Amino acid sequence: MSDTWLDEIKWTEEGLCPVIAQQAESGKILMFAWMNRESLALSVAEGYAIYWSRSRKRLWRKGEESGHRQKIIDISIDCDEDVILLKIEQEGGIACHTGRESCFYRRLIDKQWQTAEPVLKDPQQIYKKHE
Amino acid sequence: MSDTWLDEIKWTEEGLCPVIAQQAESGKILMFAWMNRESLALSVAEGYAIYWSRSRKRLWRKGEESGHRQKIIDISIDCDEDVILLKIEQEGGIACHTGRESCFYRRLIDKQWQTAEPVLKDPQQIYKKHE
Repeated sequence: MSDTWLDEIKWTEEGLCPVIAQQAESGKILMFAWMNRESLALSVAEGYAIYWSRSRKRLWRKGEESGHRQKIIDISIDCDEDVILLKIEQEGGIACHTGRESCFYRRLIDKQWQTAEPVLKDPQQIYKKHE
Repeated sequence: MSDTWLDEIKWTEEGLCPVIAQQAESGKILMFAWMNRESLALSVAEGYAIYWSRSRKRLWRKGEESGHRQKIIDISIDCDEDVILLKIEQEGGIACHTGRESCFYRRLIDKQWQTAEPVLKDPQQIYKKHE
Protein backbone atom coordinates (compact mmCIF):
# COMPACT_ATOMS: atom_id res chain seq x y z
CA MET A 1 0.00 0.00 0.00
CA SER A 2 2.90 2.28 -0.68
CA ASP A 3 2.27 5.83 -1.84
CA THR A 4 5.82 6.25 -3.07
CA TRP A 5 4.54 6.88 -6.61
CA LEU A 6 2.60 9.88 -5.29
CA ASP A 7 5.57 11.12 -3.27
CA GLU A 8 7.77 11.03 -6.38
CA ILE A 9 5.68 13.67 -8.11
CA LYS A 10 7.05 17.19 -7.81
CA TRP A 11 3.89 19.00 -6.82
CA THR A 12 3.73 22.77 -7.18
CA GLU A 13 3.69 25.00 -4.13
CA GLU A 14 -0.10 24.78 -4.30
CA GLY A 15 0.14 20.98 -4.30
CA LEU A 16 -0.86 20.62 -7.92
CA CYS A 17 0.41 18.87 -11.03
CA PRO A 18 -0.54 19.71 -14.65
CA VAL A 19 -2.31 16.93 -16.52
CA ILE A 20 -2.65 16.40 -20.26
CA ALA A 21 -5.62 14.30 -21.34
CA GLN A 22 -5.11 12.49 -24.63
CA GLN A 23 -7.61 10.34 -26.47
CA ALA A 24 -5.99 6.91 -26.25
CA GLU A 25 -7.09 5.60 -29.62
CA SER A 26 -6.64 8.65 -31.84
CA GLY A 27 -3.84 10.40 -29.98
CA LYS A 28 -5.84 13.62 -30.05
CA ILE A 29 -5.23 16.05 -27.19
CA LEU A 30 -8.55 16.72 -25.56
CA MET A 31 -7.85 18.96 -22.59
CA PHE A 32 -5.42 20.18 -19.98
CA ALA A 33 -6.21 20.42 -16.28
CA TRP A 34 -4.71 20.04 -12.83
CA MET A 35 -4.69 17.36 -10.18
CA ASN A 36 -3.71 17.38 -6.55
CA ARG A 37 -2.55 14.35 -4.65
CA GLU A 38 -6.03 13.34 -3.59
CA SER A 39 -7.54 13.68 -7.05
CA LEU A 40 -4.78 11.62 -8.64
CA ALA A 41 -5.07 8.88 -6.03
CA LEU A 42 -8.85 8.83 -6.53
CA SER A 43 -8.46 8.80 -10.31
CA VAL A 44 -6.32 5.70 -10.08
CA ALA A 45 -8.64 4.08 -7.56
CA GLU A 46 -11.80 4.76 -9.57
CA GLY A 47 -10.35 4.43 -13.07
CA TYR A 48 -11.81 7.75 -14.21
CA ALA A 49 -10.23 11.20 -14.37
CA ILE A 50 -10.81 13.35 -11.31
CA TYR A 51 -9.23 16.78 -11.48
CA TRP A 52 -8.74 19.60 -9.02
CA SER A 53 -10.77 22.60 -10.07
CA ARG A 54 -8.65 25.65 -9.32
CA SER A 55 -11.58 28.02 -9.87
CA ARG A 56 -14.01 26.12 -7.68
CA LYS A 57 -11.33 24.87 -5.29
CA ARG A 58 -12.73 21.38 -5.09
CA LEU A 59 -12.45 17.94 -6.62
CA TRP A 60 -13.90 17.83 -10.09
CA ARG A 61 -15.06 14.44 -11.26
CA LYS A 62 -14.85 15.07 -14.99
CA GLY A 63 -18.30 14.37 -16.40
CA GLU A 64 -20.10 14.86 -13.09
CA GLU A 65 -22.46 17.31 -14.79
CA SER A 66 -22.07 16.51 -18.46
CA GLY A 67 -21.80 12.75 -18.20
CA HIS A 68 -18.68 13.03 -20.31
CA ARG A 69 -16.42 10.98 -18.11
CA GLN A 70 -12.87 10.04 -19.02
CA LYS A 71 -11.98 6.41 -18.55
CA ILE A 72 -8.28 6.07 -17.79
CA ILE A 73 -6.36 3.75 -20.07
CA ASP A 74 -2.81 4.69 -19.16
CA ILE A 75 -0.88 7.15 -16.97
CA SER A 76 2.63 8.46 -17.67
CA ILE A 77 4.90 10.97 -16.00
CA ASP A 78 7.60 13.09 -17.58
CA CYS A 79 11.33 13.10 -16.92
CA ASP A 80 11.04 15.99 -14.46
CA GLU A 81 8.25 14.23 -12.61
CA ASP A 82 6.07 17.31 -12.68
CA VAL A 83 3.62 16.68 -15.53
CA ILE A 84 1.19 13.80 -16.00
CA LEU A 85 -0.12 12.40 -19.24
CA LEU A 86 -3.43 10.57 -19.15
CA LYS A 87 -4.51 8.39 -22.02
CA ILE A 88 -8.25 8.17 -21.82
CA GLU A 89 -11.43 7.09 -23.51
CA GLN A 90 -13.69 10.12 -23.70
CA GLU A 91 -17.28 9.14 -23.02
CA GLY A 92 -19.69 10.94 -25.30
CA GLY A 93 -16.80 12.01 -27.52
CA ILE A 94 -16.86 15.52 -26.04
CA ALA A 95 -14.25 16.86 -23.62
CA CYS A 96 -14.81 20.61 -23.94
CA HIS A 97 -17.46 22.60 -22.13
CA THR A 98 -18.20 24.31 -25.47
CA GLY A 99 -19.55 21.00 -26.78
CA ARG A 100 -16.50 20.25 -28.92
CA GLU A 101 -14.44 17.08 -28.91
CA SER A 102 -11.29 18.91 -27.78
CA CYS A 103 -10.60 22.10 -25.87
CA PHE A 104 -7.86 22.87 -28.40
CA TYR A 105 -10.24 23.84 -31.16
CA ARG A 106 -8.71 27.15 -32.21
CA ARG A 107 -5.73 27.17 -34.55
CA LEU A 108 -3.37 30.02 -35.21
CA ILE A 109 -3.93 30.99 -38.84
CA ASP A 110 -2.65 34.30 -40.21
CA LYS A 111 -1.94 35.40 -36.64
CA GLN A 112 -5.53 34.88 -35.60
CA TRP A 113 -6.99 32.16 -33.39
CA GLN A 114 -9.52 30.63 -35.73
CA THR A 115 -12.11 28.07 -34.74
CA ALA A 116 -11.30 24.84 -36.52
CA GLU A 117 -13.62 22.30 -34.92
CA PRO A 118 -17.39 22.05 -34.83
CA VAL A 119 -19.67 22.08 -31.82
CA LEU A 120 -20.93 18.51 -31.58
CA LYS A 121 -23.60 19.24 -29.00
CA ASP A 122 -25.12 22.44 -27.70
CA PRO A 123 -23.67 23.10 -24.23
CA GLN A 124 -27.17 24.02 -23.04
CA GLN A 125 -28.23 20.50 -23.92
CA ILE A 126 -25.15 19.00 -22.28
CA TYR A 127 -25.61 20.72 -18.94
CA LYS A 128 -29.37 21.20 -18.85
CA LYS A 129 -30.31 17.81 -17.50
CA HIS A 130 -28.48 18.37 -14.25
CA GLU A 131 -29.80 21.83 -13.51
CA MET B 1 1.03 43.73 -37.66
CA SER B 2 -1.44 43.19 -34.88
CA ASP B 3 -0.37 41.34 -31.75
CA THR B 4 -3.96 40.71 -30.74
CA TRP B 5 -3.38 36.96 -30.87
CA LEU B 6 -0.69 37.36 -28.20
CA ASP B 7 -2.86 39.63 -26.09
CA GLU B 8 -5.65 37.07 -26.13
CA ILE B 9 -3.55 34.54 -24.23
CA LYS B 10 -4.13 34.48 -20.49
CA TRP B 11 -0.55 34.55 -19.31
CA THR B 12 0.21 33.52 -15.73
CA GLU B 13 1.32 36.09 -13.19
CA GLU B 14 4.89 35.27 -14.25
CA GLY B 15 3.95 35.96 -17.86
CA LEU B 16 4.05 32.31 -18.91
CA CYS B 17 1.84 29.85 -20.73
CA PRO B 18 2.12 26.04 -20.58
CA VAL B 19 2.91 24.37 -23.90
CA ILE B 20 2.33 20.79 -24.97
CA ALA B 21 4.55 19.55 -27.79
CA GLN B 22 3.02 16.78 -29.86
CA GLN B 23 4.63 14.90 -32.72
CA ALA B 24 2.49 15.99 -35.66
CA GLU B 25 2.57 12.75 -37.59
CA SER B 26 2.23 10.15 -34.84
CA GLY B 27 0.26 12.18 -32.29
CA LYS B 28 2.76 11.18 -29.62
CA ILE B 29 3.25 13.66 -26.77
CA LEU B 30 6.92 14.50 -26.62
CA MET B 31 7.29 17.13 -23.91
CA PHE B 32 5.75 19.89 -21.86
CA ALA B 33 7.35 23.28 -21.34
CA TRP B 34 6.59 26.96 -20.93
CA MET B 35 6.63 29.99 -23.19
CA ASN B 36 6.49 33.68 -22.47
CA ARG B 37 5.23 36.27 -24.90
CA GLU B 38 8.62 36.82 -26.50
CA SER B 39 9.36 33.14 -26.95
CA LEU B 40 6.00 32.46 -28.55
CA ALA B 41 6.34 35.40 -30.92
CA LEU B 42 9.84 34.23 -31.85
CA SER B 43 8.64 30.65 -32.29
CA VAL B 44 6.07 31.79 -34.79
CA ALA B 45 8.53 34.08 -36.55
CA GLU B 46 11.25 31.43 -36.82
CA GLY B 47 9.05 28.37 -37.29
CA TYR B 48 10.82 26.43 -34.55
CA ALA B 49 9.90 25.98 -30.88
CA ILE B 50 11.51 28.45 -28.53
CA TYR B 51 10.60 28.01 -24.89
CA TRP B 52 11.19 29.99 -21.75
CA SER B 53 13.45 28.07 -19.40
CA ARG B 54 12.15 28.67 -15.89
CA SER B 55 15.28 27.18 -14.30
CA ARG B 56 17.72 29.19 -16.40
CA LYS B 57 15.45 32.21 -16.71
CA ARG B 58 16.20 32.74 -20.36
CA LEU B 59 14.96 31.91 -23.82
CA TRP B 60 15.58 28.29 -24.70
CA ARG B 61 15.81 27.53 -28.36
CA LYS B 62 14.92 23.85 -28.21
CA GLY B 63 17.80 21.97 -29.81
CA GLU B 64 20.33 24.76 -29.30
CA GLU B 65 22.70 22.28 -27.66
CA SER B 66 21.39 18.92 -28.83
CA GLY B 67 20.48 19.86 -32.38
CA HIS B 68 17.06 18.36 -31.70
CA ARG B 69 15.00 21.26 -32.91
CA GLN B 70 11.22 21.20 -33.17
CA LYS B 71 9.78 22.43 -36.43
CA ILE B 72 6.35 23.90 -35.86
CA ILE B 73 3.57 22.45 -37.98
CA ASP B 74 0.55 23.82 -36.19
CA ILE B 75 -0.37 25.87 -33.11
CA SER B 76 -3.63 25.63 -31.19
CA ILE B 77 -4.98 27.23 -28.05
CA ASP B 78 -7.52 25.83 -25.63
CA CYS B 79 -10.96 27.15 -24.73
CA ASP B 80 -9.62 28.99 -21.66
CA GLU B 81 -6.86 30.57 -23.74
CA ASP B 82 -4.23 29.57 -21.23
CA VAL B 83 -2.62 26.47 -22.75
CA ILE B 84 -0.91 26.08 -26.11
CA LEU B 85 -0.62 22.91 -28.16
CA LEU B 86 2.24 22.73 -30.64
CA LYS B 87 2.25 20.11 -33.36
CA ILE B 88 5.84 19.66 -34.34
CA GLU B 89 8.32 17.62 -36.29
CA GLN B 90 11.01 16.49 -33.88
CA GLU B 91 14.43 16.66 -35.52
CA GLY B 92 16.59 13.69 -34.57
CA GLY B 93 13.53 11.90 -33.22
CA ILE B 94 14.55 12.72 -29.64
CA ALA B 95 12.82 15.32 -27.47
CA CYS B 96 13.97 14.26 -24.00
CA HIS B 97 17.28 15.18 -22.41
CA THR B 98 17.60 11.53 -21.35
CA GLY B 99 17.97 10.58 -25.01
CA ARG B 100 14.47 9.20 -25.35
CA GLU B 101 11.88 10.12 -27.97
CA SER B 102 9.46 11.49 -25.38
CA CYS B 103 9.81 12.91 -21.90
CA PHE B 104 6.78 10.85 -20.89
CA TYR B 105 8.64 7.56 -20.82
CA ARG B 106 7.54 6.28 -17.43
CA ARG B 107 4.19 4.55 -17.06
CA LEU B 108 2.30 3.86 -13.87
CA ILE B 109 2.25 0.07 -13.53
CA ASP B 110 1.33 -1.58 -10.23
CA LYS B 111 1.62 1.82 -8.54
CA GLN B 112 5.19 2.26 -9.69
CA TRP B 113 6.56 4.57 -12.35
CA GLN B 114 8.23 2.11 -14.68
CA THR B 115 10.44 3.05 -17.59
CA ALA B 116 8.68 2.01 -20.76
CA GLU B 117 10.78 3.57 -23.52
CA PRO B 118 14.38 2.98 -24.58
CA VAL B 119 17.21 5.49 -24.63
CA LEU B 120 17.81 6.09 -28.34
CA LYS B 121 21.05 7.98 -27.88
CA ASP B 122 23.40 8.40 -24.93
CA PRO B 123 22.88 11.92 -23.54
CA GLN B 124 26.65 12.30 -23.25
CA GLN B 125 26.83 11.84 -27.00
CA ILE B 126 23.95 14.24 -27.59
CA TYR B 127 25.42 17.11 -25.60
CA LYS B 128 29.13 16.43 -25.97
CA LYS B 129 29.67 18.08 -29.32
CA HIS B 130 28.68 21.49 -28.07
CA GLU B 131 30.72 21.48 -24.88
